[in-house]
Amino acid sequence: MRLTLLAASIAMAAATTSHAAHAGEGMWVPQQLPEIAGPLKKAGLKLSAQQLSDLKGDPMGAVVALGGCTASFVSPQGLVVTNHHCAYGAIQLNSTADNNLIVNGFNAPTPADELSAGPNARVYVLDDIQDVTAQARAAIAGAGDDPLARTQALEAFEKKLVADCEAEAGFRCRLYSFSGGNSYRLFRNLEIKDVRLAYAPPGSVGKFGGDIDNWMWPRHTGDFSFYRAYVDKNGKPAAYSKDNVPYQPRHWLKFADKPLGAGDFVMVAGYPGSTNRYALAGEFDSTASWTYPTIARHYQAMIDLIAAAGEKDPDIKVKYASTMAGLNNTSKNYEGQLEGFQRIDAAGQKHAEEDAVLAWLRSQGQQGQAALQAHQQLVALNQQAQATRERDLVMRMFDRTSVVNAATELYRLAIERGKPDAERESGYQDRDLPGIEGAMKQMERRYVPAMDRQLQAYWLNQYLQLPADQRVAAVDSWLGGNDAKAVQRALDRLARTGLGDTDTRLKWMQADRAAFEASEDPAIQYAVAVMPTLLKLEQERKVREGQSLLARPTYLQALADYKKSQGEFVYPDANLSLRITFGNVMGYAPKDGMQYTPFTTLEGVVAKETGKDPFDSPKALLDAAKVKRYGGLEDARIGSVPVNFLSDLDITGGNSGSPVLDAQGKLVGLAFDGNWESVSSNWVFDPKLTRMIAVDGRYLRWIMQEVYPAPQLLKEMDVAAP
Amino acid sequence: MRLTLLAASIAMAAATTSHAAHAGEGMWVPQQLPEIAGPLKKAGLKLSAQQLSDLKGDPMGAVVALGGCTASFVSPQGLVVTNHHCAYGAIQLNSTADNNLIVNGFNAPTPADELSAGPNARVYVLDDIQDVTAQARAAIAGAGDDPLARTQALEAFEKKLVADCEAEAGFRCRLYSFSGGNSYRLFRNLEIKDVRLAYAPPGSVGKFGGDIDNWMWPRHTGDFSFYRAYVDKNGKPAAYSKDNVPYQPRHWLKFADKPLGAGDFVMVAGYPGSTNRYALAGEFDSTASWTYPTIARHYQAMIDLIAAAGEKDPDIKVKYASTMAGLNNTSKNYEGQLEGFQRIDAAGQKHAEEDAVLAWLRSQGQQGQAALQAHQQLVALNQQAQATRERDLVMRMFDRTSVVNAATELYRLAIERGKPDAERESGYQDRDLPGIEGAMKQMERRYVPAMDRQLQAYWLNQYLQLPADQRVAAVDSWLGGNDAKAVQRALDRLARTGLGDTDTRLKWMQADRAAFEASEDPAIQYAVAVMPTLLKLEQERKVREGQSLLARPTYLQALADYKKSQGEFVYPDANLSLRITFGNVMGYAPKDGMQYTPFTTLEGVVAKETGKDPFDSPKALLDAAKVKRYGGLEDARIGSVPVNFLSDLDITGGNSGSPVLDAQGKLVGLAFDGNWESVSSNWVFDPKLTRMIAVDGRYLRWIMQEVYPAPQLLKEMDVAAP
Repeated sequence: MRLTLLAASIAMAAATTSHAAHAGEGMWVPQQLPEIAGPLKKAGLKLSAQQLSDLKGDPMGAVVALGGCTASFVSPQGLVVTNHHCAYGAIQLNSTADNNLIVNGFNAPTPADELSAGPNARVYVLDDIQDVTAQARAAIAGAGDDPLARTQALEAFEKKLVADCEAEAGFRCRLYSFSGGNSYRLFRNLEIKDVRLAYAPPGSVGKFGGDIDNWMWPRHTGDFSFYRAYVDKNGKPAAYSKDNVPYQPRHWLKFADKPLGAGDFVMVAGYPGSTNRYALAGEFDSTASWTYPTIARHYQAMIDLIAAAGEKDPDIKVKYASTMAGLNNTSKNYEGQLEGFQRIDAAGQKHAEEDAVLAWLRSQGQQGQAALQAHQQLVALNQQAQATRERDLVMRMFDRTSVVNAATELYRLAIERGKPDAERESGYQDRDLPGIEGAMKQMERRYVPAMDRQLQAYWLNQYLQLPADQRVAAVDSWLGGNDAKAVQRALDRLARTGLGDTDTRLKWMQADRAAFEASEDPAIQYAVAVMPTLLKLEQERKVREGQSLLARPTYLQALADYKKSQGEFVYPDANLSLRITFGNVMGYAPKDGMQYTPFTTLEGVVAKETGKDPFDSPKALLDAAKVKRYGGLEDARIGSVPVNFLSDLDITGGNSGSPVLDAQGKLVGLAFDGNWESVSSNWVFDPKLTRMIAVDGRYLRWIMQEVYPAPQLLKEMDVAAP
Repeated sequence: MRLTLLAASIAMAAATTSHAAHAGEGMWVPQQLPEIAGPLKKAGLKLSAQQLSDLKGDPMGAVVALGGCTASFVSPQGLVVTNHHCAYGAIQLNSTADNNLIVNGFNAPTPADELSAGPNARVYVLDDIQDVTAQARAAIAGAGDDPLARTQALEAFEKKLVADCEAEAGFRCRLYSFSGGNSYRLFRNLEIKDVRLAYAPPGSVGKFGGDIDNWMWPRHTGDFSFYRAYVDKNGKPAAYSKDNVPYQPRHWLKFADKPLGAGDFVMVAGYPGSTNRYALAGEFDSTASWTYPTIARHYQAMIDLIAAAGEKDPDIKVKYASTMAGLNNTSKNYEGQLEGFQRIDAAGQKHAEEDAVLAWLRSQGQQGQAALQAHQQLVALNQQAQATRERDLVMRMFDRTSVVNAATELYRLAIERGKPDAERESGYQDRDLPGIEGAMKQMERRYVPAMDRQLQAYWLNQYLQLPADQRVAAVDSWLGGNDAKAVQRALDRLARTGLGDTDTRLKWMQADRAAFEASEDPAIQYAVAVMPTLLKLEQERKVREGQSLLARPTYLQALADYKKSQGEFVYPDANLSLRITFGNVMGYAPKDGMQYTPFTTLEGVVAKETGKDPFDSPKALLDAAKVKRYGGLEDARIGSVPVNFLSDLDITGGNSGSPVLDAQGKLVGLAFDGNWESVSSNWVFDPKLTRMIAVDGRYLRWIMQEVYPAPQLLKEMDVAAP
């Protein structure tokens, strides 16, 4: 949750480029650093933009991706700092009935005591970025006029590129499309597979405030944890082994030696997932008027179901805690976005901007025609997608319920494994197998048959309510009826599946297509029944993608040209690739007569104390705060230890855990959330109210010094208490 | 509501002197101005303290009392400005079904169009203050050792003093006791009886935010209205007559010519009702643990009853609107006080302070003994009062319901009228008759038999629940039973009273005691039945008062001596007499990470707009705000027209409508509320969080210029728009 990736919003994201290089707005690609050297210096950066551009140098070389979160090396022995909520899965994984690490925290006295973060935990260390725009475009052009062929040509190009890139063991590669295809870059990362949990504060610090404070200011969350990256004795990535040794990064961040204060320069490097700042006005409209309210409503219904079931069955409560956190986070996020859209008249702004671009294009005569046509085409594509949006949502959500998801995934894998690796659909290649296996294993921690059945029931009943022209023949015939009874029968059938069992799922990972098609497992029978339709719908999407592949970059180039003509800097929408954002520590005025100050303090933690989760600080914290035992980590300007701080940086989901660096490139905190008013900035950036929330590095140190002491790590990071 | 007097809190107030002469805390009596000249100058006052001490000079001579509120002259033609909520009764009085002035506002084009504020409306212009401490003490001493005789001696002294003072027609006099009897001062006021409503903004400005925003910041209320004072052709006070002419005050306030900003000096002169800063710790305890929670609970029950009845009967809704506002205001106030007591550990502070005083007194040897004994006596008196507090509350509240109140008041009046005027109980002398008559008339606007019966039922049922030792024999025998049926019969009897009729009540005002005692009116029969008990209880109270009359000043003098020994300035608790408070415009930090800024703006009014009461601004306001038509009244520092502002001044109920003056003694606004965190400061002052809320003079002018224009009044006040 918080600024980890929101799966749903990524799925929704129109692949799309934005503006302005005053501090604040802008998720700059590293290649743009020389271009924005002026604004960076003006905002207060003391390092040269050139030093910052060296992605394998200091400090950028210390920034790593976790997949969904960002992190950074903070010691020569592979110690990694990220958010508590980014390490949440690993903390949960290592919790037992006797020792709940979420509650108690975890502190490995020596590296030998560190706990595996699980087989799917990763630390990605950036090795290389290569611009492959020309090649990608050539591949697309080679496919001619057929849109499906274009999509497939790009897919084939991507698979070949990635396979070549990953030929050397230990690397993971990914092709990123920027601005809807205006440029393509291949990122190559060292893929560290043995990741271990070194330290997590008690949950009453790490997730202080819980869902109540999520997205909120004033905030007082100690949202940090430590991993350590391990490699084999030759320094190569390897799966977990007790013989592995700590990875020795070329660079690691050092804690700031100057106290951070209001107005100071700060910057963040990280992996933001998705923004939609260059979406068409019509795409915005359908999101604001349909997608967000509809999903929020369904998620709320699911939350209510799970909460009610969890009240009666503690097993459900535990196993669906992570699902609940995700649903809550997304529905609250959508609610905030909708509120923000109203507040800043986002629809008005989007339409006014688009109208200005179109008017400018028309004024360009012949030159503007291609972009105008591209715009028309994108408008039509959006309308097409809307015609079946109810069906698409219901199908996607039903197919995501646990055993149904396992069945469709496993059957699809069997289908794809029937082809040579290079020809398989992305996501089902050999390189993807560990991920699939991990998901199949992880299901057992997030699945209770009775709850899964309730969620199946919810979505099948939604299916029954679809308009006739959106019904799917294969589903209709599988259901064998049109009413609640048919749903009941379907649920009874599905209840007999063997896929609730982990070993069974893992066994089916090895099965071939024929075995699935002969299977009597009712969930697999569902998968077999609907797969032709799913593949057809996938192909229809690929046709639309193929159309977009030409139209989107053409229009977005025109949009960028327009913005540049207006004197604006332009950056591409977030796409999970490395970005830099910079600005200054500052509060904001949430409403007339009120100002949020940029720092919260230890006393604010105490003021929120209720003795009950999520406001139940450890006794050691309350005791230390009471006697003002600040341990040398207080800031005279605020008279206490700073806990969280605000800045006008531009981040989004995926930036969680990003190191916040000061003007000297030293570590001053970790990004972990945006404020409530910022969430709508994914679509239309509001500089007045968009703020990043970070945990102050001094609070992190204070917790590790005075509350849940880890002197060994402080020493390793060279900030041992005096 | 807001900072008009809270009847209940006055009734509760222990008559009691407090400390500190930094700006902020301190309700200084005018005689103290030379003493605090240093702090005044330090805070920024440019006038000399000497000029300020001239209560009949400029600017203090312009400040007037309305009885429950404060106001000030703002033109040579008797124009008076006060709060909208202080003129609320007059606005309501002049509303008709066709023209609801509360909703529409009122704007008399010429003085001839001004409307009488009612027979009881008053403007009190201060004429003289005389120190009569020596005489009062002599009177008390002359009564010897009997406490009842002491109370009676002081009452007799007061009545004689007031009668002599009021011998010249047109004056109203009042004896004020300061610090529990440490000093006595006689105030003589010109009593202007013809008061007319000149201007009230629409309710959507004047009470913008309603009960939701009451006590709250950020605030956006245009809480102002204008009266005009009229006298007869000879310049003497006279009842309303169309032949009367505007009163010409010697002094009137001028609007500030320098824009008010954050940090600027401000001061307020006004008539605060009651504070309890020198109450004993035990008195504080019983208030915090019993009085406030108990009254708040009963008031909430009454609010629920009236709200439910009002839903069904619009007549009840209208006639009990004012009662409801009062109940809501008081219960919200008590709730805020209790919250504040917790926040600042008021009990801890009170006890620590009292312990320090007692320890200091003990260290004084023989000298401290008298004060220590006085303290013991006050502790005992407080314990006595607590023994019957449940009974006292229930009796008082039942006797306040409309017809029962009329019956007891009228019968008591008849009893007192059997005595020479000078011997009658205070409140029933000839000078009090107009007030009683006004109340008897006003009842018709605030009384619906069905609702009155419900409230009688509520309190009689509370009576049934009293512990046996607190039951009143006279009430028991009047009830004739001990259960719900007896209550029902009593209600049925009371329902047959004729006192619901105004003419009947006025007729009974003339009746003698025998007529009451022979009456078959059931409400009067109740009054006759319980009066001996009421008189006995009154006498018991007077005995306790007589004991307090010596003990309280002795202890409070010791408390003052202690505080002075600690270098603190000391001021007496509020007692309805004229006070000066001063300080600076400033916001505050309601919690960690948050700061309230000292000014709100026009844009904040618009941001609160919902289109529904109480957030439904006039269209003219919204239109003007939209195009930023600030009319020259904007402040560049905040980029808009300031609406309300905060300062650290020390005010309480009764200060409503007080003019806020700048360093030059010019008008910059009107006090109308305290912030939520300030309400507990009536007992223990919290300088960090106690703020006064005032409507900015520029907003007042802007409304009268751009929204609900009154160019004639702006011209009269010499601030006509350019």
